[in-house]
Amino acid sequence: MKARDKSKSTETRTEKRTREPQGAQSADVAKHAALLALDWGTTSLRAYLFDAAGEVLATRVSTAGIMNLPVPAAEGGFEAAFDEACAVWLAESPALPVLAAGMVGSAQGWVQAPYVETPASAEALVEGIVRVRTTSGVTVCVVPGVLEPGALPNVMRGEESQVFGALYGASRAGVAARPDTARSALIGLPGTHAKWVVVEGGQIARFYTFMTGEVYAALMAHTILGRTMKRPAEPDTQAFLRGVSVAREHGCAGLLATAFSTRTLGLTGQLAPDEQPDYLSGVVIGHELAGLEAALARRDVALAACAPPLIGNDALCERYRLALEQFGCTGARLVHRATERGLWHIAVLAGLVAPR
Amino acid sequence: MKARDKSKSTETRTEKRTREPQGAQSADVAKHAALLALDWGTTSLRAYLFDAAGEVLATRVSTAGIMNLPVPAAEGGFEAAFDEACAVWLAESPALPVLAAGMVGSAQGWVQAPYVETPASAEALVEGIVRVRTTSGVTVCVVPGVLEPGALPNVMRGEESQVFGALYGASRAGVAARPDTARSALIGLPGTHAKWVVVEGGQIARFYTFMTGEVYAALMAHTILGRTMKRPAEPDTQAFLRGVSVAREHGCAGLLATAFSTRTLGLTGQLAPDEQPDYLSGVVIGHELAGLEAALARRDVALAACAPPLIGNDALCERYRLALEQFGCTGARLVHRATERGLWHIAVLAGLVAPR
Repeated sequence: MKARDKSKSTETRTEKRTREPQGAQSADVAKHAALLALDWGTTSLRAYLFDAAGEVLATRVSTAGIMNLPVPAAEGGFEAAFDEACAVWLAESPALPVLAAGMVGSAQGWVQAPYVETPASAEALVEGIVRVRTTSGVTVCVVPGVLEPGALPNVMRGEESQVFGALYGASRAGVAARPDTARSALIGLPGTHAKWVVVEGGQIARFYTFMTGEVYAALMAHTILGRTMKRPAEPDTQAFLRGVSVAREHGCAGLLATAFSTRTLGLTGQLAPDEQPDYLSGVVIGHELAGLEAALARRDVALAACAPPLIGNDALCERYRLALEQFGCTGARLVHRATERGLWHIAVLAGLVAPR
Repeated sequence: MKARDKSKSTETRTEKRTREPQGAQSADVAKHAALLALDWGTTSLRAYLFDAAGEVLATRVSTAGIMNLPVPAAEGGFEAAFDEACAVWLAESPALPVLAAGMVGSAQGWVQAPYVETPASAEALVEGIVRVRTTSGVTVCVVPGVLEPGALPNVMRGEESQVFGALYGASRAGVAARPDTARSALIGLPGTHAKWVVVEGGQIARFYTFMTGEVYAALMAHTILGRTMKRPAEPDTQAFLRGVSVAREHGCAGLLATAFSTRTLGLTGQLAPDEQPDYLSGVVIGHELAGLEAALARRDVALAACAPPLIGNDALCERYRLALEQFGCTGARLVHRATERGLWHIAVLAGLVAPR
């Protein structure tokens, strides 16, 4: 839990589910609020309070993801979670516009916001917004996800807003300036289901999903590989990069084969138990990047020639940046506050808030 | 449990741990016995009683694998499991020679039989046999595993015996005739950790391990992919082959990417819940075979030109046979009794039994 008070902006991060209002301090900042925006995923709910210049006044983080509601969905679980996170702000400013993105718009969400198909612009996302009204009369505008149709379809919910946040990140803080619509980029979103998004002409043209984080967790906890491991005192970057290198240089046989080297290098005394977690992480992320490189190459794009912004957990993004260097991709950089910037930008485009 | 009585041979299969002697019938067959051989792996123990012609007189199957002993290893667990499975036979024929292969010879086993390095002949396995003596005076000869050293080492324990069983499978039943020593083959052993073994000059030249079965189980039970699935009433071969085809044709992005199509094809109504388990099985096995094809190609061997014997569970081997056809490899065939034949052959080479 981290609390900060600096020139009238209060940031309250609650890593446990928010059960009680934060009191007068939260209500005070709400007086200056112009937008309430939610990043509502499977395992967490993040609520951002913006002022009219697009600055974040306050943030509340709860574990009330759509699969972890305080009461079942059928018994008003979404509204209960929403109230837990936002009622204190709305009590002060009941007319605040509310925008939400993420799994909250899925078939298992509060209201289904059907996917927008690629190529998907921010304007198309705005057109696809679906509204849900709470019993207390608050209208929540839910941003749709994006679908790339095809033989092997791809879907995202939440990342589309972050992508536009990264694209607009260079514009003047808080103001949704129009980017160069011819702008092309490859944007990386490491995580449980890592996404790599190709932007062309300011639109989401296509994207790739890799189950990297989830598969890594399953390999660690539910296969023989985890049995001989010890967690290191510090993250072991050298072991990580060794794993990346194995995936890149010996990866033709695929992850099913190279992952097993975690065990055989251990059995033959070439990889210590406390090197194995980071080595395996490198192998799995290395396979993701090798797969990305191959998929991009099919469209004559060289991964090494890209300078991808990376969105996500700082430590994880830094790992990806190091791994990308092994693929000759040296221009990757971490992007901060893409989620907030994306939500703000979509809200402005949707006319929910007029930036000052 | 299956019991069969036919011309003095009794086959007793006990899928639960054997707790009680099978009585007079088992003792009777032991009078004709010339060898007791064990396939002792992580999760099961199979004991075979052979006559002097190499015919299997009786089989006992127990779940007392080395990770599932009736009492802890330090408290005599190996001997207890051995006695449970074999005491009834040894009571009748106490001088029976005993051979064991598999994880029983690993660092976590009864006695460690250090790996033999590739290229590994049957004779080298015999030279590497390590003996352990029970408190009742029975000597158990433990066959070593095989190690392929290198940047990414590979190991096997138990499969080496099956490989020689498959190689000698064509020889006259029960008699360990010398095979053509120039014989080359690719041999497949589908399973939890699938192995593909390249035999050259009658020796195990090199091999590949794919964590196919274990990763499939982890994906099913511990990732989002399992959540939307229903188990079909019958195995769905069409869904399986669709998955294989996806891995073969769209597999350049790797398993981390293609596995996710199980979910997106479901979300978009293109793959029914009860098609998803077999589809994912096809994707995973398809990636194994694509990886095998690429690894073989590096040594100028075409998978399509191979006619691999397949050793393992019949239904699984049949799946592999169908999947291999999609890779142009139409000559695969199922091999039966490779384990028994391999153990017998090694015992003969080791002079434990003189075949009649």
